[in-house]
Amino acid sequence: MTKIVTISREFGSGGRTVGKKAAEILGIPCYDSEIIAKIAEQSGFAENYIREHSEDAVDSGIFAALSRTDYYGLNNSDQIWAIQCGIIKELAEQGPCVIVGRCADYILSDRDDILKVFIHAPKEARMQRIVHEYGETDIDPEKRITDKDKRRISYYQLYTDNKWGVAQNYNISLDTEAIGIDKCAEIIADLAK
Amino acid sequence: MTKIVTISREFGSGGRTVGKKAAEILGIPCYDSEIIAKIAEQSGFAENYIREHSEDAVDSGIFAALSRTDYYGLNNSDQIWAIQCGIIKELAEQGPCVIVGRCADYILSDRDDILKVFIHAPKEARMQRIVHEYGETDIDPEKRITDKDKRRISYYQLYTDNKWGVAQNYNISLDTEAIGIDKCAEIIADLAK
Repeated sequence: MTKIVTISREFGSGGRTVGKKAAEILGIPCYDSEIIAKIAEQSGFAENYIREHSEDAVDSGIFAALSRTDYYGLNNSDQIWAIQCGIIKELAEQGPCVIVGRCADYILSDRDDILKVFIHAPKEARMQRIVHEYGETDIDPEKRITDKDKRRISYYQLYTDNKWGVAQNYNISLDTEAIGIDKCAEIIADLAK
Repeated sequence: MTKIVTISREFGSGGRTVGKKAAEILGIPCYDSEIIAKIAEQSGFAENYIREHSEDAVDSGIFAALSRTDYYGLNNSDQIWAIQCGIIKELAEQGPCVIVGRCADYILSDRDDILKVFIHAPKEARMQRIVHEYGETDIDPEKRITDKDKRRISYYQLYTDNKWGVAQNYNISLDTEAIGIDKCAEIIADLAK
């Protein structure tokens, strides 16, 4: 039975590409930006607003944690989180797939057919990648990576209570620089079969 | 070119078995307790004493860190560490091999032919394993695991300045419960080739 694969990934590690390639090998769908589009549809928020208030949120640090305890119900980030949880659970219900990012590993943790993957790479390789592959040349790549890392770490910890990047939270963690994107995809597809 | 494989592992995860099986597939030596024997030979300390003053040390916490700053030179743990570094570097010089434990990933980090592996498993599976495979029935398995984890975490942090179990310190991290010991060994052997 093919499993549902969740891919958590460091910014610039090539995790999205690994996910797409593994899904291709397995002949199953890969969900990534589609999830944002679905959240936009259900919430009425613009896609960019959702990006800024979910895993790449600027405000998911301690202030967001404090603001969540207010007496006025859910804030926008919490609303987006609730809708995101529903969408990811629905997608998993539809059958085997690869889901990139969005804390899917945590959201689906009550299922027993999940392969939880973490994709990472050394900072130097990620800097190269965001310049050459993503074509991001307007901001200092090191600053961009540090900033994105901070956001994902805070967001993951805020909503899941797990620590980002701890090997024990995943079934397999892979360094794309040492192993190569294609080999990572092959290993994942083989394990998910 | 076959690489040198370093295996860091949680107690009870089956990391030693994974290492031995990967080495068998690759037809290269696997060093584990041999390293303790070599340290004993060079240092004059008994093997049990070495175990208690290296990665499973009872005293590698904050007190050991403080005691290292004394004015009387190296303490016994530091001496063992120095000898261990020399032995592991020598073994690596002799050619491809698998080295289990003993911070070999850190000690060999200036080489570019290392595959750094971390082997882990959920606590429940590790408890089962130490009772059924290692036959340890005299101490509460949960207490035994918590205790061993603490020792390895402190020791690793004290001597390497790296955090134990962080995925980014390794090229690949594998959960033996989800993936299986044999499959882990196969993946590692394939990557080390």
